[in-house]
Amino acid sequence: MHSFKNDYSEGAHPDILDALLRNNNRQEEGYGLDQHTLNATSLIKKLVGDSDAAVHLISGGTQTNLIAIGAFLRPHEACITVKTGHIATHETGAIEATGHKLLTVDGVDGKLTPQLIAPVLTEHHFEHMVKPRLVYISNPSELGTIYTKDELSLLSDYCRKNDLFFYIDGARLGSALVCQESALTLEDVYSLADAFFIGGTKIGALLGEALVVRNPALKSDLRYLIKQRGALLAKGRILGIQFEELFRDNLYFNLAKHANDMAQYMVAELTDSGCTFLINSPTNQIFPVMENTVIDELSQQFDFYIWAKIDENNSAIRLVTSWATGQKEVESFVDAYKTTSVIHA
Amino acid sequence: MHSFKNDYSEGAHPDILDALLRNNNRQEEGYGLDQHTLNATSLIKKLVGDSDAAVHLISGGTQTNLIAIGAFLRPHEACITVKTGHIATHETGAIEATGHKLLTVDGVDGKLTPQLIAPVLTEHHFEHMVKPRLVYISNPSELGTIYTKDELSLLSDYCRKNDLFFYIDGARLGSALVCQESALTLEDVYSLADAFFIGGTKIGALLGEALVVRNPALKSDLRYLIKQRGALLAKGRILGIQFEELFRDNLYFNLAKHANDMAQYMVAELTDSGCTFLINSPTNQIFPVMENTVIDELSQQFDFYIWAKIDENNSAIRLVTSWATGQKEVESFVDAYKTTSVIHA
Amino acid sequence: MHSFKNDYSEGAHPDILDALLRNNNRQEEGYGLDQHTLNATSLIKKLVGDSDAAVHLISGGTQTNLIAIGAFLRPHEACITVKTGHIATHETGAIEATGHKLLTVDGVDGKLTPQLIAPVLTEHHFEHMVKPRLVYISNPSELGTIYTKDELSLLSDYCRKNDLFFYIDGARLGSALVCQESALTLEDVYSLADAFFIGGTKIGALLGEALVVRNPALKSDLRYLIKQRGALLAKGRILGIQFEELFRDNLYFNLAKHANDMAQYMVAELTDSGCTFLINSPTNQIFPVMENTVIDELSQQFDFYIWAKIDENNSAIRLVTSWATGQKEVESFVDAYKTTSVIHA
Amino acid sequence: MHSFKNDYSEGAHPDILDALLRNNNRQEEGYGLDQHTLNATSLIKKLVGDSDAAVHLISGGTQTNLIAIGAFLRPHEACITVKTGHIATHETGAIEATGHKLLTVDGVDGKLTPQLIAPVLTEHHFEHMVKPRLVYISNPSELGTIYTKDELSLLSDYCRKNDLFFYIDGARLGSALVCQESALTLEDVYSLADAFFIGGTKIGALLGEALVVRNPALKSDLRYLIKQRGALLAKGRILGIQFEELFRDNLYFNLAKHANDMAQYMVAELTDSGCTFLINSPTNQIFPVMENTVIDELSQQFDFYIWAKIDENNSAIRLVTSWATGQKEVESFVDAYKTTSVIHA
Repeated sequence: MHSFKNDYSEGAHPDILDALLRNNNRQEEGYGLDQHTLNATSLIKKLVGDSDAAVHLISGGTQTNLIAIGAFLRPHEACITVKTGHIATHETGAIEATGHKLLTVDGVDGKLTPQLIAPVLTEHHFEHMVKPRLVYISNPSELGTIYTKDELSLLSDYCRKNDLFFYIDGARLGSALVCQESALTLEDVYSLADAFFIGGTKIGALLGEALVVRNPALKSDLRYLIKQRGALLAKGRILGIQFEELFRDNLYFNLAKHANDMAQYMVAELTDSGCTFLINSPTNQIFPVMENTVIDELSQQFDFYIWAKIDENNSAIRLVTSWATGQKEVESFVDAYKTTSVIHA
Repeated sequence: MHSFKNDYSEGAHPDILDALLRNNNRQEEGYGLDQHTLNATSLIKKLVGDSDAAVHLISGGTQTNLIAIGAFLRPHEACITVKTGHIATHETGAIEATGHKLLTVDGVDGKLTPQLIAPVLTEHHFEHMVKPRLVYISNPSELGTIYTKDELSLLSDYCRKNDLFFYIDGARLGSALVCQESALTLEDVYSLADAFFIGGTKIGALLGEALVVRNPALKSDLRYLIKQRGALLAKGRILGIQFEELFRDNLYFNLAKHANDMAQYMVAELTDSGCTFLINSPTNQIFPVMENTVIDELSQQFDFYIWAKIDENNSAIRLVTSWATGQKEVESFVDAYKTTSVIHA
Repeated sequence: MHSFKNDYSEGAHPDILDALLRNNNRQEEGYGLDQHTLNATSLIKKLVGDSDAAVHLISGGTQTNLIAIGAFLRPHEACITVKTGHIATHETGAIEATGHKLLTVDGVDGKLTPQLIAPVLTEHHFEHMVKPRLVYISNPSELGTIYTKDELSLLSDYCRKNDLFFYIDGARLGSALVCQESALTLEDVYSLADAFFIGGTKIGALLGEALVVRNPALKSDLRYLIKQRGALLAKGRILGIQFEELFRDNLYFNLAKHANDMAQYMVAELTDSGCTFLINSPTNQIFPVMENTVIDELSQQFDFYIWAKIDENNSAIRLVTSWATGQKEVESFVDAYKTTSVIHA
Repeated sequence: MHSFKNDYSEGAHPDILDALLRNNNRQEEGYGLDQHTLNATSLIKKLVGDSDAAVHLISGGTQTNLIAIGAFLRPHEACITVKTGHIATHETGAIEATGHKLLTVDGVDGKLTPQLIAPVLTEHHFEHMVKPRLVYISNPSELGTIYTKDELSLLSDYCRKNDLFFYIDGARLGSALVCQESALTLEDVYSLADAFFIGGTKIGALLGEALVVRNPALKSDLRYLIKQRGALLAKGRILGIQFEELFRDNLYFNLAKHANDMAQYMVAELTDSGCTFLINSPTNQIFPVMENTVIDELSQQFDFYIWAKIDENNSAIRLVTSWATGQKEVESFVDAYKTTSVIHA
């Protein structure tokens, strides 16, 4: 039974496994000082257009978030995020475990705006309250929506004017970058954010995220902090080789585009069949609304999460595609939907 | 130039890479709930002889230590270790970063004994001082020495009598288990310790350590704590597949034995040539003492660390072998030593 | 200019200062082992009706909260509170600084109910989210409202059925206890909560809160945790003498009653003059709604906080009375209000 | 039975209690913004000779240490101290509980020197180890010895050259300042250290330490950090009034001198009677060595701690005097010693 539950069900793209195999027997320096890591970080520096960028490869997203935010903030400083932000919901209090409060606001389509941040700054005005110091967003957001270059620019300006660090969780950053609507490049993200990460785990790698830091004030001693959190892998090559492969040519972007295309194919086909959506998301996560009876039958053939109850008879489900999702599977899902919904109509 | 600097210079054993390849395309549950992880932990439960053992796969040693110790202790409780303990020297204060003090004592050949622990308990007698609560050892120790079954039994008894948790860092546990002198099995380690880990990174894996918890009081909610530290990998299969391969047959033990054999071959040959050793270590880390002029010449041909100055003219070096070290390399080192030391004699 | 801004503007009740003077020159044991602390804690044990209660004297409320909650919870466990809870708003992230997330819900009149807690438990169902483990309330709440014995019983039952610790911040507990509406005794609070504190600072003392722990599972090693947070005063007598004085006879309750009476006198008089209130609070904090022009004039003669904007022309102010507030001051405020509001009518 | 166990057995100096009484009924701002705190910090700024000094009043020494060190350091930065340092022995791991490792060295007479620090810097050279960043000393040391101005200058120079913060625990700072041997003023301490505190609890106050920060890089947001640790007292006047009294005239220095004089009177008299000392301490803590039989008899009449076993028949005891110790008590102790030791001779 094919699963549309998430984008980390399969292993790595074959090119990555090939590269692991090819480079397996050479001896390398440990702890991220190997040739592959040096090469991968150098490729990323080129893509962001700054040879002074600090780039560190880390195993997972939660780990990257807690290392970065824990490194950037003093103990009384807090982090602003929408309520649906990954750090606020699905990281088991990892940021709080480093000592920092999250200040959450209701997002709009899962996204943050300067207008939503402003009241938080007004409210936190003295030493009996934490000091807002970092703005966290995910792009794409946890609801599959994206920030356009203009939206990011507004946030970036606002943060700089208000002495806030701007940090972007890019667990699926590729999906946002290859969306035409976002009009966004890695170079843009780099210049607008103080720091961000490029997620590998969900776009073709076995594991690995690349933390990229632009703000010089945030760069110092990061290897100490990575080691202290237990995130400096002895065989750092496992990360280096993967990112080398993802960014040597355009593999990362191609895989992200494939995932988006598969999801958007389903969006188009389902829409044609009269299906509506909970939210308009142009990436690899989509949220069709279906009758519960239809959902029941589809769930006999496919794995997916039921996301939200709409009313007595209808719910939204979440479908996620990945680099590994085949045209066959998406067609098969669409066909099943068409058949099932006709029967129930 | 061949490196004897450490046992994590190469990638993974070929069987492991094969397994990654073989299982790459199947969809699996995320976050350590995949079939491979379930199978690997089940294999380990069999080896330790208890189906109730709690087994968790984690990326690295420092991470495992900080998760386990941070999970086991209340804020005022402290950890006893020898000064050379890995947590005390080379983890960038990771344990202190979880809030816990380390109480360090001078070890004997890098090892701890009940006699060394006793004064720490006597000294820490009231609430102005931390409360000693966990004993940490590494087996093999950081100096390559091992604890025999008898030595571990004495420590285990002492800990139980004194309400101390007994935790074993097994970053190179295989090396201790395959030493005849230790007379130790995984089942022994399990029954004597409250918790320990089986290191994969240094014995054939790309990354991965298996935390094994026997004490029922320490088992609860560990997946929460692993997630909170950012250590629950989305594609947990990367760990599951490797440990499955290491413990399906005897790969783990065979690789450990190979590494030990290579080192002990050097010990025998160097001893024959009149070389002495800083410490008598039966594992894959050895510490020959050589004239500085000899060391200089050897370092033209091989990579290794100079470990300690002995006197004006002599130093101890550290040589580490691994699953990947070939007979050719160790012979070549021994030959170079013989040639060089004759010239200088 | 008299201030109604808070209940900690004055020093201590004269009886307390007398006691400090009287007992100044006798030598006493340090760190809370002095005769006065022993006597004070013994008086409190009698009042709660359990000689096995654990009672610890601590300087302030934020300190007591962070010590208690930090002691009671494991790292991944979280604390449920209303959004207006003191720990959520005015403690500079003190609880998060001990590593714990707060799960906030909208309160009803500043208060929590089982119905408000239930969805939090449902939502936090797996290890990617924190584990709700402690329910925090303040009684009186931060809005001056109180929990009746029945309301506390419902919360207590709910917590016990759901394996949640029930912790009560009693910074102004006396004010709740002396309200007839609450029908509540110290013995009730003790038997319903797992732990709570009796605030001294706001009811007659110079400083000091008494942490009282009923749940045996939460009692162990609290002196270690108090010391570790820097809260074990060398001259613990300063706390002991004050609580001895507060609880020898009924001073604590008398002072609380006086403060309530002064506030409720104002409530009655202001109501008679047509004033309405933002919230119906029977304690020493009241929130009259007035025309902004009236507020402006009153603020020439009295200090108080403007609490909330009601509409273009009206705002709510906060008036707080204390053990030290005189009949003269409250009458003078009421008179000023009457005069001013007549003029503006 | 008179106690020489410590210098916090009595309450406050009568002038301080008078001041508390005198200022009790006036309404003041809360949380350290009262007139007394403003005046006290202003007096201290004058004494250190810098109106830009940051001065904060905090309840106790452990609390001050953990607030200051926790505020000054990033998570991977560590603190160098002698093994006998108060933070290393008697603060229940308070510094580690803020996340920071202590790097301990054997002191000379309880004191630190640049020569003792240097190897720590050499050893901690890369990101697998913590980064030494702050040097902690107590003056007087925990053994009653003092740092002269020259010794402090050497440490200060060394710290500045090596990018280390220099922090002085002054729990008994007055005792060091009034020693002629130290040739030290508060102005000196201020100019040599980056931050230090002036202990009130052990020199006449009921509670209270004044944290003084010179280094501008360490001043920002300290009130946030004090609040977050639960150390911002609502009735800050309790601290303000005491320090106002201690520093209005010379009360602080007079009380320190009295305590030293009482101890040194005993030193002179005991020496005359043939008594020797474990360590040569010019302050209010002294460590005479006596026969165990003599100690036994003296302990029938006086309270004191047995500090160290010297040999089978002799031990060192610790005697501590305070602002409250009378000439009568010290004479009485000396007489008892003379009588007892004659009998046993």
